[in-house]
Amino acid sequence: MSQSSPSLAPFRAVDAIRKKRDAQEHTREEIEQLVAGYTRGQIPDYQVAAWLMAVVLKGMTRAETAALTETMLRSGEVLDLSSLPGVKVDKHSTGGVGDKTSLVLAPVAAAGGLLVPMISGRGLGHTGGTLDKLEAIPGFNVNLPLPEFLRVLRECGCAMIGQTAEIAPADKKLYALRDVTATVESPYLICASIMSKKLAEGIDALVLDVKTGSGAFMKKQEDAAFLAELMVETGQRMGKKVVALLTDMDQPLGRKVGNALEVEECIEVLRGEGPDDLRRLCLELCGWMFLLGGRAKSKDEGIKLAAEIIASGRGIQKFRDMVRLQGGDARVVDEPARLPQAEHKTDVLSPREGFVTAIQCEQVGIASMMLGGGRERKEDSIDPAVGLVLRKKVGERVVRGEPLCTIHYNSEARVAAARQMIEASYQISDQPPSSGQPLVHGLICGIENEGS
Amino acid sequence: MSQSSPSLAPFRAVDAIRKKRDAQEHTREEIEQLVAGYTRGQIPDYQVAAWLMAVVLKGMTRAETAALTETMLRSGEVLDLSSLPGVKVDKHSTGGVGDKTSLVLAPVAAAGGLLVPMISGRGLGHTGGTLDKLEAIPGFNVNLPLPEFLRVLRECGCAMIGQTAEIAPADKKLYALRDVTATVESPYLICASIMSKKLAEGIDALVLDVKTGSGAFMKKQEDAAFLAELMVETGQRMGKKVVALLTDMDQPLGRKVGNALEVEECIEVLRGEGPDDLRRLCLELCGWMFLLGGRAKSKDEGIKLAAEIIASGRGIQKFRDMVRLQGGDARVVDEPARLPQAEHKTDVLSPREGFVTAIQCEQVGIASMMLGGGRERKEDSIDPAVGLVLRKKVGERVVRGEPLCTIHYNSEARVAAARQMIEASYQISDQPPSSGQPLVHGLICGIENEGS
Repeated sequence: MSQSSPSLAPFRAVDAIRKKRDAQEHTREEIEQLVAGYTRGQIPDYQVAAWLMAVVLKGMTRAETAALTETMLRSGEVLDLSSLPGVKVDKHSTGGVGDKTSLVLAPVAAAGGLLVPMISGRGLGHTGGTLDKLEAIPGFNVNLPLPEFLRVLRECGCAMIGQTAEIAPADKKLYALRDVTATVESPYLICASIMSKKLAEGIDALVLDVKTGSGAFMKKQEDAAFLAELMVETGQRMGKKVVALLTDMDQPLGRKVGNALEVEECIEVLRGEGPDDLRRLCLELCGWMFLLGGRAKSKDEGIKLAAEIIASGRGIQKFRDMVRLQGGDARVVDEPARLPQAEHKTDVLSPREGFVTAIQCEQVGIASMMLGGGRERKEDSIDPAVGLVLRKKVGERVVRGEPLCTIHYNSEARVAAARQMIEASYQISDQPPSSGQPLVHGLICGIENEGS
Repeated sequence: MSQSSPSLAPFRAVDAIRKKRDAQEHTREEIEQLVAGYTRGQIPDYQVAAWLMAVVLKGMTRAETAALTETMLRSGEVLDLSSLPGVKVDKHSTGGVGDKTSLVLAPVAAAGGLLVPMISGRGLGHTGGTLDKLEAIPGFNVNLPLPEFLRVLRECGCAMIGQTAEIAPADKKLYALRDVTATVESPYLICASIMSKKLAEGIDALVLDVKTGSGAFMKKQEDAAFLAELMVETGQRMGKKVVALLTDMDQPLGRKVGNALEVEECIEVLRGEGPDDLRRLCLELCGWMFLLGGRAKSKDEGIKLAAEIIASGRGIQKFRDMVRLQGGDARVVDEPARLPQAEHKTDVLSPREGFVTAIQCEQVGIASMMLGGGRERKEDSIDPAVGLVLRKKVGERVVRGEPLCTIHYNSEARVAAARQMIEASYQISDQPPSSGQPLVHGLICGIENEGS
């Protein structure tokens, strides 16, 4: 009788679903059997869908989250970078509008002696993706096979590709199911998805940039902080050095939104120029990477090192090397006009005098998507040339008729709706906003030395 | 943009799942599109599985429950009994151990002038099923096609078959999915499943027997009461007269458990004999059927009518007719030895003197299942002859070495475990139990005249 000896009974998915439905804690073995069985095709979609909904509504403990992350990680290949000298450090952002720091961080960190094996994603909805930005560079190949990826990494210290079939296949299969069953929005599942992919890169340390505000997935700071803590603890349980920064996504980061435009802005930062908020966030994140990677004794020393690398031109040179090694046209670095250019530009003018007090960040991202710069659905193709240049950001003064934003577009049919969305996203008042939003809202630190 | 006009957007299952996940109320149209789309095979299992789990954990409103019931009902054929004279009344029980009232009620109610078009289920786990009991009668066919079912109904006023492919196919498909996704245990889903099938019988009124206690699915009385209220309200919303009785399942009903044994005990009751609890519950339920069907002015008048029908022999004659019309050997009614008989019998003896203060009812059901009298899995076959005869029930005095229970068995290999389970299920103490459990714990009445 199965009733009398439950501990000897074979694993049944329905029992695991019932357990989570009743808010009980899974053993590590149960999570392994469920997720590995699903990945191998032995457990059907419908059972995992019911389990995912139970996880969304009943949550997971830290031990369960770590077990899920590890099972997903071990469902595929974990890169063995032990033959490459140097500490392997990466950065991951939860995504936002105009969030382009990876293109600056990877070459600067590599120029400072770290190894940055960066596996990134594509944009969806109002957010952009690193791969789409890189592909705006003519010839840049984000689909390198793993041996080629390792070759670039060995040669220049950084390389940037998309997820391959070998990396965390369980995540790929689970994510596709979550997407169609309204089970994406769970911090536990998000944590396991992000951390399994990042730890599959074979890294020693990870800096997490968890966005919060109107343009982030986690609009509320407490939700972002919860996810950040979960990811830091999960990374620690797996023996990695991890810190998470909660950073502002209440308005777009930098002034440019759209793929080629964002590459252009990253090149500005690598030249020591570019908008202040983007430059400061790149330095902050890079400072943490250098601290975690043992290249600096404190975060501030790391920031200083990053600033020196940029000032010396070593950062932009590393970027040229990486572009070239991944098949891209490195001339874009010195001649940004070689990047795809939109055929038309038009300004959105301010209807009144005053101060910009808020920019609805998600609306700006959607406006860029509507122009063709992003995807409404995963299968949509994108136009690398289109996008937005924000001429005014929060706190800035504006007179009536002055441009708030320049729209770069290729399709006349799409511009009216985008313009309307941008007009609606700007809030202009007589008084300046009471106080500037800090760029970094908080820090969750998984290492002993707090850095500054 | 779908964002700007959600009301004009086409139905997407993922949006409905998200809505229920976030504990929002569905429109009737959403439920129709989800369930009808699923039944037609246009919405995949995994989306409905996630939705079912969200329903289990977030619940439904009364309006949603009624909409779900109606959608499931309309997924198949609804019997049109308008050509048959008389009021159509049925009874449904949520199931238990020794729960065999249907075999008494249908012929007695029919003999009293009601039409009883009873579509029943099979047993699973510790509970028995009406179809399995009927099949213990040699030749009895529970798989009549609908026209044949209607012919028997016209000829003798009652007929008893299993669910056909035409009746509520949505329920069949949903139940199979619920069974493997741990989403059976939801009062809303249970209500919709029961009521859609019962209302598909084309009935005017329904008496619900909702079991509570250690042998019921709903062990707690408040859970049973909640389900009962839900079913009564759902029936009322669909224009039917419905009452629900909360009845005791803290010990088996009657003294016999097992398919042929239970038929035998029903024949005893139809003869005016049989155990007191079973006879009283049959009269009570039949009293309500006569009241709802307009054959009595009060429930008590209905009980009187039922008692008269049994005493006059008209009830047992109707049972003979039904058995014969459905292909069964009607001689079993007068010669019960023609029912399948187990080869062996053995007594479970009392280890001490005292009073029976409790019988773990679910254990008794499992013991019968272990003998072969029930199914652990849906696909298991059953042995109609085996079962248990309880020689002592709660409140009764027992001396040491006196039989508590007689096991009827065919397989020596199965008897030891069943014996052990029965021994463990009996609780015997020096003092008699403080007070007898009432047979009817409560009433949820969906009609104006409360009956007694």
